[in-house]
Amino acid sequence: MKIIEGGVTAAAGFEAAGAEAAIKYQNRKDMAMVYSRKPCKAAGVFTSNVVKAAPVMWDKEVVAHSPYVQAVVVNSGIANACTGTQGYECCRKTADRAAELLDLSADAVLVASTGVIGSQIPVDRILAGVDKLVQDKKDTIEAGTMAAEAIMTTDTVSKQAAVQIELDGRTVTVGGMCKGSGMIHPNMCTMLGFVTTDIAISKELLQEALSEDVVDTFNMVSVDGDTSTNDTLVVLANGMAGNREIMSKDENYYKFTEALHYVNQTLAKKMAGDGEGATTLFETRVIHAATKADARRLSKSVIGSSLCKTAVYGNDANFGRFLCALGYSGVKFDPEKVSLYFENGEKSMLIYENGVAADYSEEEASKILASPEVRVLVDMHTGDAEATAWGCDFSYDYVKINADYRS
Amino acid sequence: MKIIEGGVTAAAGFEAAGAEAAIKYQNRKDMAMVYSRKPCKAAGVFTSNVVKAAPVMWDKEVVAHSPYVQAVVVNSGIANACTGTQGYECCRKTADRAAELLDLSADAVLVASTGVIGSQIPVDRILAGVDKLVQDKKDTIEAGTMAAEAIMTTDTVSKQAAVQIELDGRTVTVGGMCKGSGMIHPNMCTMLGFVTTDIAISKELLQEALSEDVVDTFNMVSVDGDTSTNDTLVVLANGMAGNREIMSKDENYYKFTEALHYVNQTLAKKMAGDGEGATTLFETRVIHAATKADARRLSKSVIGSSLCKTAVYGNDANFGRFLCALGYSGVKFDPEKVSLYFENGEKSMLIYENGVAADYSEEEASKILASPEVRVLVDMHTGDAEATAWGCDFSYDYVKINADYRS
Repeated sequence: MKIIEGGVTAAAGFEAAGAEAAIKYQNRKDMAMVYSRKPCKAAGVFTSNVVKAAPVMWDKEVVAHSPYVQAVVVNSGIANACTGTQGYECCRKTADRAAELLDLSADAVLVASTGVIGSQIPVDRILAGVDKLVQDKKDTIEAGTMAAEAIMTTDTVSKQAAVQIELDGRTVTVGGMCKGSGMIHPNMCTMLGFVTTDIAISKELLQEALSEDVVDTFNMVSVDGDTSTNDTLVVLANGMAGNREIMSKDENYYKFTEALHYVNQTLAKKMAGDGEGATTLFETRVIHAATKADARRLSKSVIGSSLCKTAVYGNDANFGRFLCALGYSGVKFDPEKVSLYFENGEKSMLIYENGVAADYSEEEASKILASPEVRVLVDMHTGDAEATAWGCDFSYDYVKINADYRS
Repeated sequence: MKIIEGGVTAAAGFEAAGAEAAIKYQNRKDMAMVYSRKPCKAAGVFTSNVVKAAPVMWDKEVVAHSPYVQAVVVNSGIANACTGTQGYECCRKTADRAAELLDLSADAVLVASTGVIGSQIPVDRILAGVDKLVQDKKDTIEAGTMAAEAIMTTDTVSKQAAVQIELDGRTVTVGGMCKGSGMIHPNMCTMLGFVTTDIAISKELLQEALSEDVVDTFNMVSVDGDTSTNDTLVVLANGMAGNREIMSKDENYYKFTEALHYVNQTLAKKMAGDGEGATTLFETRVIHAATKADARRLSKSVIGSSLCKTAVYGNDANFGRFLCALGYSGVKFDPEKVSLYFENGEKSMLIYENGVAADYSEEEASKILASPEVRVLVDMHTGDAEATAWGCDFSYDYVKINADYRS
C-alpha cells in the first residue's frame, strides 16, 4: 500500500470542482462536484437520525435503486433538513440540472448538503452553481483540493487522503475527502465524506466493505455527541483500474478493504483533530476487553466525555475522570482490574492500576497530555478485544468562537 | 399540601449543621451533618456508574442492612472515589467517630462526598469536622440552611424545599436539600440529595416511593451528561409525626408520595437551573408520546443536546436543532407528525408542524427564549404518554469559569 497525494481526483477517471455559489455566505467556495467519466458502482452509509435531511433521502434512493452513479453535487451553506416537500424538490432540480449538463439520468446524481437546518435553499443559486461546477471540473489534484475546500464549514483545514495498491498487476487507487464537525457550532455539525476509487468490484461487496469499515473509523469519532440530520459517506467505484472485477471475498477484496480502511481512518482522524478550537487529537485505545462491542463503547465513552476532554485540554492528569467515563459507558467491569496509561507516541506512563493511582509524576503526566496527539490506553485485563476512538480536547478558544457567533 | 420554609430540619426531630473543616478549601463550610433524634427508616438511590466512590459503597451497605439510620456526614472537598481500601477505611473512621459522639452504632451513620476524584481524604481533618458538627447541630431552619450551604461545590445558591401534609389528623413534614452539578466543572459534577421526613412508614414502602419518584424527578435532569461516581439521594423517616405507620399503598401512602414528589421535583429543578453559568432553566415537555419510556428519552435528548442548549442561550429559534435532538434519541417516530412549541409560562408559540416551519415571528420566538424559564413543548401526536426533563442553557460565562479554573 502506497500513500499518495490527493483526494477524490486521485483515482483514474475522476474529476472535481469547487465554486462560489453564494448559497448562504459570500466570497467563499460553497459548492463542490465530484464526477466520474465512467459509470460507478455506489455504496453509502447515512445518518441514523430519524429526522433525515432531504438529500439523505434522495441519496438513499439512488444508492439502493440506481443502476449506476456518475456525479455528486454538494453545498455547504444550507443543510436542506426539515424542509418538507420543497426541500426534496430542490434535490430533484439539482440532480436534473447536473444530469442535463453531463448527459446523465437524474438518478445517477447524488446530492449532499451541510449548513443551517430548517431554511430552504435558493434553487436559482444552486442551479447556477451546478453550471459553474460542470464547466470547471478537472481531474487534477488541485481540482480535488478545490472541492475539499468547498465542502468545509467551520473546518480549519481541508481533509483528503489517498493510497494505491496493486491488483492483478494493475494499479488501483482509493482517495477521498471529508468535512468535519465544529463542536457546538450550531447548524454545522455534519460529517460529509466522499471516497472515489477506480477498482472494479461488485456493488454488493463495495457496500459491505464500506459498512464494515465505518464501524471502526468514522463511527469511532465523536465531537459533540449530536448526530446530524445530514451525515453522509459515499464511495464511488468506476472500474477504470482494469483489475478483474472483485466478486467474492478473495485476497484482492481484503487488499482493497485495507486501502479503504486507511483512507477512512485517516479522514476520520483528521476530522477528530479539527474540532472547533481543538488543540489536541485525543485518542482512546481500549485493549483486552471482553468483546469488540465493549471495547467500542468504552473507548467512545471516554472521548465523548466533557470531563475527559477538559482534562486533556488542561493537561490535568486527573485519572478519576477517565475511570468515571468508563464506568458510565454501560459496560460492566471491575474497576480494580483496569490499568490506565497516558501516551504520546514517545512515552507510555502508567497512571492507575489495582483500584488506586500509580506512583507517577504529575509533572511528567501533564507533559504527555500537552502533546499534540494524546492517547489514553485502557487495559481491561479481561478478554482479547480492542478498539480505538478519536476525539479532540475541549478548549477555551472553541467557546470564544461560539460566543462570538452568538453575539 | 402546604409549602413551607426550610429543608432537612423542617420535619420534627431533625437537626443539622455546617462546618469549616478545610478538607480541600479554606474559609468556607465544607462539611455538613444531618441528625435525627429518633432512629430512622432509610431509603436510597445511588449512581449507576460501575465505578462507585467509597461512600456510595458504604451507604449501599447501610441502607440495605442496617436496622436504622440516625446521622449523615457529608464533605464537599474530596469525592473519595478511586481511593481503594484506604478510601473505604476513611468512611468507616468517619462513621465510627460520629457514632461514638452521638452514642450510635457505626452502621447507623451514612457518609457522602463530592469533590476531586482520586485524592485521599485527610482523615484527621474529617474527624475534627465531625466533632464540630456534632457540637453545632441544631433543629432550626438556619441550621438546615447552614448544612445546605456546606454541601455546595460550584452551586451559586443553596437548594432546599419543604412541604406539610395532614395524615390521621397529624401534620407530616417532608423537607430536603441538594447540591447540583457544575456543567463541565471538573471533579465536581456530583448530585447529592438528602430528604428528611417525620412520617411513620415501612422501610420497603419508603424505598419504593423514592425509587419510583426519582425516575421522573432527579433522573430527568441533565447537566453535562457525565454520570458521577458519587451520586447519592437518601431519605430518612423517623416516624415522629405520630401517624399510623404506612404499611400498604393506601390513601396515606399516595398523599406522602405526592409530598415527596414535590420536594424532589423542586430540588431537581433548582439543580437544573443552577448549572454553571446557566442563565435559563430549560424545560422540555413531551406529550402524546407512544410510551412513557419514549417520552422520557425524547425529552432528555433535547435538554441534553449542546446544540439545543446553545440555541436557548442565544435566543435562536432554530427549531431544526430540537428536531435533530428528538431524531437521535433512539425513539422511532415520523418527523412530519411532530408539533413543536416554545413557551415561557405566559405565551405558547407554534414553531414547527407538518414537517416544516410554522408561520411564526422570529422576533417573538426569540423573546420567549430570552425568558428566565423556557419550555419547549413537543407534541408527538401518537399516544397519551408524557414526560418532562430539566436542564439549563449553555452560556459563555460557564466556560469562562472553567477556562479560568484550568489556567
